[in-house]
Amino acid sequence: MSVLVVGSIGLDTVKTPVEEHADLLGGSASYAAVGASFFTGVNLVGVVGDDFPKAHVDYFSSHRIDLSGLQIVPGKTFRWSGEYHWDLNTRTTRSIELNVFEHFTPMLPKAYADTPFVLLANIAPKLQSHVLDQMERPRFIIADTMDLWINIAKDDLLALLKRVDMLILNDGEARELTKETSLIRAGNCIRELGPKYVAIKKGEHGCLLFGPNVFFSCAAYPLEDIHDPTGAGDTFAGGLAGYLASLDHSAITFEHLRKAVVYGSVLASYNVEAFSLERLRKLSYQDIEERYQMFKLMSHFEVLE
Amino acid sequence: MSVLVVGSIGLDTVKTPVEEHADLLGGSASYAAVGASFFTGVNLVGVVGDDFPKAHVDYFSSHRIDLSGLQIVPGKTFRWSGEYHWDLNTRTTRSIELNVFEHFTPMLPKAYADTPFVLLANIAPKLQSHVLDQMERPRFIIADTMDLWINIAKDDLLALLKRVDMLILNDGEARELTKETSLIRAGNCIRELGPKYVAIKKGEHGCLLFGPNVFFSCAAYPLEDIHDPTGAGDTFAGGLAGYLASLDHSAITFEHLRKAVVYGSVLASYNVEAFSLERLRKLSYQDIEERYQMFKLMSHFEVLE
Repeated sequence: MSVLVVGSIGLDTVKTPVEEHADLLGGSASYAAVGASFFTGVNLVGVVGDDFPKAHVDYFSSHRIDLSGLQIVPGKTFRWSGEYHWDLNTRTTRSIELNVFEHFTPMLPKAYADTPFVLLANIAPKLQSHVLDQMERPRFIIADTMDLWINIAKDDLLALLKRVDMLILNDGEARELTKETSLIRAGNCIRELGPKYVAIKKGEHGCLLFGPNVFFSCAAYPLEDIHDPTGAGDTFAGGLAGYLASLDHSAITFEHLRKAVVYGSVLASYNVEAFSLERLRKLSYQDIEERYQMFKLMSHFEVLE
Repeated sequence: MSVLVVGSIGLDTVKTPVEEHADLLGGSASYAAVGASFFTGVNLVGVVGDDFPKAHVDYFSSHRIDLSGLQIVPGKTFRWSGEYHWDLNTRTTRSIELNVFEHFTPMLPKAYADTPFVLLANIAPKLQSHVLDQMERPRFIIADTMDLWINIAKDDLLALLKRVDMLILNDGEARELTKETSLIRAGNCIRELGPKYVAIKKGEHGCLLFGPNVFFSCAAYPLEDIHDPTGAGDTFAGGLAGYLASLDHSAITFEHLRKAVVYGSVLASYNVEAFSLERLRKLSYQDIEERYQMFKLMSHFEVLE
């Protein structure tokens, strides 16, 4: 089954302590859509300006990503520039140019309305809700968010949470949203706000998954070198959603979600090995399966039984 | 088989944002010995003053901990006082009184010399080496350490590392010892300093285990409330060493070590549920097995296969 992905599409300039690259393909929807496309067909909803390189459009198309929901409008594409600090765990935004993204309203092509899986990648929660308004009872809805919306659009976010099956956010955001120090308390607390499932991303420490009286802790892949963390969370969400959508099951269970979190983590671990989506461009499904097996080897402790 | 545990034995005063308790049983060897004793017999080496409560001695004895290596000397017992900050992840030492510990030299009773497993709990690396000098080719040697020794006795520590099979330390200490930001690099780097295996403790984020071309990531148990983190690392080391010593195998493999890390994590997760060793006092072996199964449920993602 296919997954609808909505979010930002942009051109990034990224500086790490080692390298700097400009005009890279970026945006939450770009990473999420490509991540999901390794598992299933994707319907992409987003906006770019008429300066958006055709090569990027072609790349999306080559990845079984349907582009009838991609608005190409007069003006400049959304641009973000950021700098990572020495440990690559924190970053500073250097500049944001919203450009055509400023007045973006996601408009779903009619054919997208019954897409069974929905990934609301990181954009304003009001826009995420607007997407749901246009849909016909999707089977499973996942939302990603960020600290900005917790700070400036908390009511919109809380309204959205009542409509989604799963929220994905990082550790700092979970603490900020709930005012809880303990991530365990925070995860359980967010479940009470609406979503049946919550995934808290912890970067180098992996990811925690919360469900009804169930809990899963996913390790992070042991990378010695990280080149660019940009989009890791979006790729995680995309891989997770894509894997779930690829399943031929009538209901999503916690067993499915454990594996989906691992597949998401596999995708994210590859993504940070190079700038922008460069590593994903070269990635094969066999690479994904190989690293999935590595996750098993490094997480299961009754391996030989 | 039995395990020799050497380290500090003291009386602690511990303050958390919620509670404060004085004159608690503490010290690295106390936690480690009791942790190990759930799995096997323990030979304890340490020193206390003549003010050390007999009730604590009796408690050790009740836990199949042999006390012929416990020196009870005239003077006051080692005392430590510390205060935990709001998130319980960091603490400030308020005072230390070395007392009889100041001139402690571990002296092994002759019967201890051939103890097959050795856990050098956190004390000065010179004293840890001195213990090894008195031993006859132990099968497996584990050392714990702390930032203090990395700062003031690094050469002694480096000399010790060449003599041990496994080093246990926390994430900050691993970074400090190696000057590596990445814990993955740090773990591999420490292996090059001597120990075949390295365990890096990450508190609420679990533990990483490094071996020759093998890696294991152990989750932390999802506790909503932590009452007193004191001794968590020592209890972890004790549980790990005790489990290994209890095995009836001719050689320690990475498979054994994975499980040992999980058992250590189980013990540590119980220990932080109450002040001092209070939770361990009530703990049964069945409690340990139950939580071990919980670790499996929350770590394995191909559960039903």
